[in-house]
Amino acid sequence: MSTLSLPANIESNPKVKAVFDDIRQTRQSDFINNMWHYLAFDPDLLESTWREVKAVMASPSSLDPLTKEMIYIAVSVANACSYCVHSHTAAARSKGMSDAQYADLLRVIALAGKTNQLASAMQLPVDAVFNKD
Amino acid sequence: MSTLSLPANIESNPKVKAVFDDIRQTRQSDFINNMWHYLAFDPDLLESTWREVKAVMASPSSLDPLTKEMIYIAVSVANACSYCVHSHTAAARSKGMSDAQYADLLRVIALAGKTNQLASAMQLPVDAVFNKD
Amino acid sequence: MSTLSLPANIESNPKVKAVFDDIRQTRQSDFINNMWHYLAFDPDLLESTWREVKAVMASPSSLDPLTKEMIYIAVSVANACSYCVHSHTAAARSKGMSDAQYADLLRVIALAGKTNQLASAMQLPVDAVFNKD
Amino acid sequence: MSTLSLPANIESNPKVKAVFDDIRQTRQSDFINNMWHYLAFDPDLLESTWREVKAVMASPSSLDPLTKEMIYIAVSVANACSYCVHSHTAAARSKGMSDAQYADLLRVIALAGKTNQLASAMQLPVDAVFNKD
Amino acid sequence: MSTLSLPANIESNPKVKAVFDDIRQTRQSDFINNMWHYLAFDPDLLESTWREVKAVMASPSSLDPLTKEMIYIAVSVANACSYCVHSHTAAARSKGMSDAQYADLLRVIALAGKTNQLASAMQLPVDAVFNKD
Amino acid sequence: MSTLSLPANIESNPKVKAVFDDIRQTRQSDFINNMWHYLAFDPDLLESTWREVKAVMASPSSLDPLTKEMIYIAVSVANACSYCVHSHTAAARSKGMSDAQYADLLRVIALAGKTNQLASAMQLPVDAVFNKD
Repeated sequence: MSTLSLPANIESNPKVKAVFDDIRQTRQSDFINNMWHYLAFDPDLLESTWREVKAVMASPSSLDPLTKEMIYIAVSVANACSYCVHSHTAAARSKGMSDAQYADLLRVIALAGKTNQLASAMQLPVDAVFNKD
Repeated sequence: MSTLSLPANIESNPKVKAVFDDIRQTRQSDFINNMWHYLAFDPDLLESTWREVKAVMASPSSLDPLTKEMIYIAVSVANACSYCVHSHTAAARSKGMSDAQYADLLRVIALAGKTNQLASAMQLPVDAVFNKD
Repeated sequence: MSTLSLPANIESNPKVKAVFDDIRQTRQSDFINNMWHYLAFDPDLLESTWREVKAVMASPSSLDPLTKEMIYIAVSVANACSYCVHSHTAAARSKGMSDAQYADLLRVIALAGKTNQLASAMQLPVDAVFNKD
Repeated sequence: MSTLSLPANIESNPKVKAVFDDIRQTRQSDFINNMWHYLAFDPDLLESTWREVKAVMASPSSLDPLTKEMIYIAVSVANACSYCVHSHTAAARSKGMSDAQYADLLRVIALAGKTNQLASAMQLPVDAVFNKD
Repeated sequence: MSTLSLPANIESNPKVKAVFDDIRQTRQSDFINNMWHYLAFDPDLLESTWREVKAVMASPSSLDPLTKEMIYIAVSVANACSYCVHSHTAAARSKGMSDAQYADLLRVIALAGKTNQLASAMQLPVDAVFNKD
Repeated sequence: MSTLSLPANIESNPKVKAVFDDIRQTRQSDFINNMWHYLAFDPDLLESTWREVKAVMASPSSLDPLTKEMIYIAVSVANACSYCVHSHTAAARSKGMSDAQYADLLRVIALAGKTNQLASAMQLPVDAVFNKD
C-alpha cells in the first residue's frame, strides 16, 4: 500500500513515455519497477530522478557496477528502506553477486552497525591522524 | 570528549596487551586508534570486538579489502557515526582509494540517501519479482 | 500485525472514552485511527500522548496546519516510520496539500537526504558564522 | 576536522569558479559555506549538487522558501546531520524565521520523533483508509 | 556551538525560574545542564519538556531509575544524539551504573545494532507467532 | 517477503543442525524463528551470529535477562527494525514483561526520541562535567 495512487495510462504523457523508454533501453528489459511508476505522478520529478540514477549507476565510473549496488544496499539497510533493500539486492544479483559475496556483504554491514553503536555510545574522540584539514 | 576515561597503563593487562600486539601485527603498524584504547576498559569486550573486526576486515574473503572499507563507510555515513566515518575513510585511503573513487563513492551514497527518502515517503509496494521467498 | 492485541470494548474505560470523544470532537469525524486504539492499552499513555498531539497540531500557532503536517512527514520519512508517513500524508491531504505541493515536499526531503549524507561523509566543519553561541 | 583537505586556490578551476560565481549571484552574498568549498575537490560533483540545490531551494515552487528550509531542518535533525542542521537553521533565520516559529518547529519535530518511536514500537497496522493504491 | 544564543539572565523570567527551581529541587543539585538553559529561549517549551522528563524519569514506575537511564542511552546511541548519550550516561553513573553494567549495556546495544542490520538486509518475514493482533 | 529463499532441508547441513540443536537446547523450545532459518544460507554466518547472541543474551551478566530485552527493543525501535521489534518484544513478554512495564518502556523510548530531536535541533554543546576524558 502506498501514499499515492498509481496513475492510469501513465505513458500517455510524453515526458513519462520518454523516461520509461530510456529505462527499458538502458536496462535492456521491458520491466519497469514501482519506483518509476509511482514517481510518474510528477513527470519532472520522475525525469530528474531517473537522470541522476542513470548517471550514477549506469555510466562508466571508477567503481564497477556490482560494487556500486553493494554500497547502495549498505546505505538502504542502514536507513531501513525496505523497498530499496529489495530493489538493489535484486539488481546486485542480476549483476552477478554470488551467495558468498552476499554473505560477506552482510558481514561488513552487520559489523559496521555494531561498531557504529560502540563508537556512538563511547563518544570516541577522533584520532588526530584521521584529520585531513 | 568521551563518556569514558582512557585507562592508564592499559597494556599492563595481559589480555589487552595480547590484543594490542595482534592489532600491531595485523596492521603492520605501531599506531592503535582510539576505538581500541577506549574499549580496553573491558578487556573481554575489546577482545571479542577485535576478533570480529579482524575476521571480517582482515581475512581473505570474496570481497576485496577496499570494497569492504567503502561498504563500511556507507553504513557509517547513514548512521551518522562521526568516528567511524573518519576511521574507515582513512583506512580506505590507506588501501588505495583514489579521489575519483571517493567522489564516486559519495555519488552512490548521496543518491541512495535521496532515493531511500523517496521510497520511504511514497511507501512504495515491493515489486513481486523482487521476492525470493 | 502488531506487538499488541487491540483491546476489546475499549471505550468502556471512561478515560479512554473521554479521549476518544475529544478526538472525534477535535477532528469533527467519527474515524479514530489505529494509533489511538492501540495506545488505549494504557489509558494514561493514551491521554498524555493525545493531549500533546492536540496541543501541538490542533492549536493555533505561528505555523499553519499544513506546514506542520509536512514537517511531520519529513521527520517520519527520515525515521522510516511507515505508519506515521501514511497517517500524516493523509492528514496533509485532508488539509489541502495539492499534488504539486506533495511533489515539492518530496523534492526537499530527497535533497536533504542527499546532502545530509554528503555532509556526514565529508565530516564538514561547521562554518563559524553559523554559531549563535 | 574533515575527511578531506580543503583544496587551495580552488577557484583557479574554471568549473569551480563558475559554480561559486553562481552561488554568490543567487544568494546575493560573497559568503560561500564549507559544503561548497569541500565538494570542490570534485568539480563535477560540486556542479551537479549545486544545480540541484538551486533548482529545489532557490526556484519558485508551490512551497515558500521558509517552509522549504524548515522541512530541510526537520530531515537534517532526524538524520542527526550536525552541519546541515546548522546551515539550514541559519538559512531559515535569514529568510525570516522568528523565535516563535523556531519554537513551533521544534515542537512538531520533537512530537514526530516521539510518535515515530511509539508507532515503530507497537508496529501499528496502517489503517485501510490511508491506502491510496 | 549551538543554533541558539544562550539567553542572558534567563531566570528573571518567572516561568523559567519556577522550572529551574523544580529541577534543582527534584535532583537535589544546583547544577542545571545545557538542555534546560537552551530550551529556556521558549519558556513554554521548557516547561512542557521538563514536566514530561520529570513524570517519566523521576516518578515511581514499574521500571527502576537505572533501567530507565540505560534504555534512554540505547535510544540515544541508535539516534546518534551526542548530547543525549553524554547526559544520560552521566545520569546512569550517578544512579549507580558500574563499569561491568556499562560494558554489558554496550554489548546489548552493539549486538542489537548488528542484528538490526541483518534483519533489515534480509527483509525477514515476521514469524506468525509474534503477531499479537 | 525476503531477499533470500528459505533453504530447503537446511538441517541436513551438520553445522546448521548443530546450531539449531543448540538454539532448541538453550531456549528449551522446538520453535526456531526466521532469523536463524534465513541466516542458514551461510552456515558460518549463522554460527557466529548465534554464538554472539547466546553469549550476550543467554549468559549470566550484570544485567538481568528482561532488562537486556528491553534495551534490545529500544535500539530496534530507534533503528526501525520491524522484525527485531517483534522478536524482542515477544522475548521480553516470555521473560515476564508486564503491560505496565511495557507502557513504561514505551514512555522512556518515546521521551528519548523526543529529546534526541530537541538536542539535535539545537545542537547543544555538551556540558563540561559530562566529559570523562
